[in-house]
Amino acid sequence: MEKRKRILTGDRPTGRLHIGHLLGTLQNRVLLQDEYEEFIIVANIQALADNFANPDKVRENIEELLCDYYATGLDFDKATVFIQSEVPEIHEIFMYLSNFATVQQVQHNPTIKTELIQKGLGDSTPLGFFLYPIHQTADILCVNADLVPVGKDQAPMVEDTRQLARKFNRTYGVELLNEPQALFGTEINVPGIDGAEKMGKSLNNCIYLSDSEEELRKKVFKIYTDPNRIHATDPGKVEGNIAFVYHDLFNPNVEEVSKMKCLYERGRIKDVEIKERLFEVMNEKLAPIRVRRIEAEGMKKELLEKAVVGSQKVSAIARGIADSMKEAMKLKF
Amino acid sequence: MEKRKRILTGDRPTGRLHIGHLLGTLQNRVLLQDEYEEFIIVANIQALADNFANPDKVRENIEELLCDYYATGLDFDKATVFIQSEVPEIHEIFMYLSNFATVQQVQHNPTIKTELIQKGLGDSTPLGFFLYPIHQTADILCVNADLVPVGKDQAPMVEDTRQLARKFNRTYGVELLNEPQALFGTEINVPGIDGAEKMGKSLNNCIYLSDSEEELRKKVFKIYTDPNRIHATDPGKVEGNIAFVYHDLFNPNVEEVSKMKCLYERGRIKDVEIKERLFEVMNEKLAPIRVRRIEAEGMKKELLEKAVVGSQKVSAIARGIADSMKEAMKLKF
Repeated sequence: MEKRKRILTGDRPTGRLHIGHLLGTLQNRVLLQDEYEEFIIVANIQALADNFANPDKVRENIEELLCDYYATGLDFDKATVFIQSEVPEIHEIFMYLSNFATVQQVQHNPTIKTELIQKGLGDSTPLGFFLYPIHQTADILCVNADLVPVGKDQAPMVEDTRQLARKFNRTYGVELLNEPQALFGTEINVPGIDGAEKMGKSLNNCIYLSDSEEELRKKVFKIYTDPNRIHATDPGKVEGNIAFVYHDLFNPNVEEVSKMKCLYERGRIKDVEIKERLFEVMNEKLAPIRVRRIEAEGMKKELLEKAVVGSQKVSAIARGIADSMKEAMKLKF
Repeated sequence: MEKRKRILTGDRPTGRLHIGHLLGTLQNRVLLQDEYEEFIIVANIQALADNFANPDKVRENIEELLCDYYATGLDFDKATVFIQSEVPEIHEIFMYLSNFATVQQVQHNPTIKTELIQKGLGDSTPLGFFLYPIHQTADILCVNADLVPVGKDQAPMVEDTRQLARKFNRTYGVELLNEPQALFGTEINVPGIDGAEKMGKSLNNCIYLSDSEEELRKKVFKIYTDPNRIHATDPGKVEGNIAFVYHDLFNPNVEEVSKMKCLYERGRIKDVEIKERLFEVMNEKLAPIRVRRIEAEGMKKELLEKAVVGSQKVSAIARGIADSMKEAMKLKF
């Protein structure tokens, strides 16, 4: 029997997950949990890097994240969900890798660059935040993952990991660290209900997995459509119309969507009809998730326990890798 | 009974220790080992930061360092000698502290600045090396040291430690991390035998604790004196004359030294006489160290074992501190 390939993926527990996460990664994780040995990191140490003054927020969001995972169909007995802070070997492996990264490499990391501009940290960048991209390589290498599902914007992180693994192996003449492959899925971008390119908690434009049916309805009816269309008889624009973007993403009836677009452009269908139907198809998808999420709320303690057990499993794997790294570096006594 | 104050000091195992180390720190450590709870770190992870491609060198120098310690009179049953790589909690504590340091703080650290210029790392500074000053604060805080014996050039490191401890405590409303004090001794600078300001392995101008009597004699007779003095009857210069610098440091007979200086300036004493006497006084000081060092050579295994046991002790202390930090950061499950 061939060994199942290892996948490493995860999230920082900084907020509830939304439909962007669902379509972008969460449902994919559920699909992968049978075929692969899947590890899902709750990256709370990295979450603290830019939330260090707000530890309660990070703490509470761990349980929310676990509920979101459960809600989307993740099986905690198949995938190994673990909490970063319960695997201190990651910090140790990070230190061993840090000799093979350069300060300039971090400075040029696109994520760091972008975040520094967005967050305006500039002159007083916390070191912990600065270390984030290299610390992530330790997350991946601590289980010697084969595959890392990423969007294109995170491809450099996998490339960094491959490079550090290669440099370490070459320097010490070992074949120890795996060079992981990026696993690119179909890029699904879910814009905010306000038309913004992405959903963001601070933008207040998200549809959360934890939203009630009523909240979903409210949000769907607030969706950005065609601002220039005043009467239902005005010809409407489909392009950039978020109601139709969401229909394309959630409505399995392609013919129906095509027909609605056609009617919309000719001023023969009301916004409210489009939205009512959108609510229906979205609710069809989200209702079972909502049910499971309510179930998860009552299982928080159990889910956390499973994540702690998962962390122990990962800690043992990581200990083995850290020890082999130490041996390669002549650090065994 | 009052609790003894904790001292943290140590060395990177990158080479044998010389008489500069002896006068500057080693003999002081021996004096402190009774009154204080003394921790001495063998900083092999930090040694690897700029020797990562040369792990054997770092490994071998650990034992040399332990022999040097023993030779100078350090009592391994009084002071706790420990090996950095055997205390992985240091890396964990480092990560927790890293949120309170800034990239700019590291860039402005005088040690990093100087080393970057001296070593010309410039464009490709290894991240591990860059992290060195903040990683050192974790060495100190992992035992919550009260005192850190340092030269003036290392004062910023203690200041960094105080600052990070203070910021951590304040942010999480705890009184957990100690703000250590710098313990400034008399600054003793021992120039190289060639007249260079400092002894340096790469400068080949050191008198090592492990030098034999014959090597000592050879080196003493090579010492830089007054290059313009050709005959013993020429008036000689005392200032900048390393033979006299060493006499001032090693010859307890102040009157004799004063007299020799006087005769030297008048051209009434030979270089060889000054040096012969210097060899005698230096050998008086170094001979017992040499004897103990030869003894230590046969005890390498035992000394290493003691350092491993010391590491276990420190690891337990550091685990306690790391756990308290985790609790403050809401990272306990």
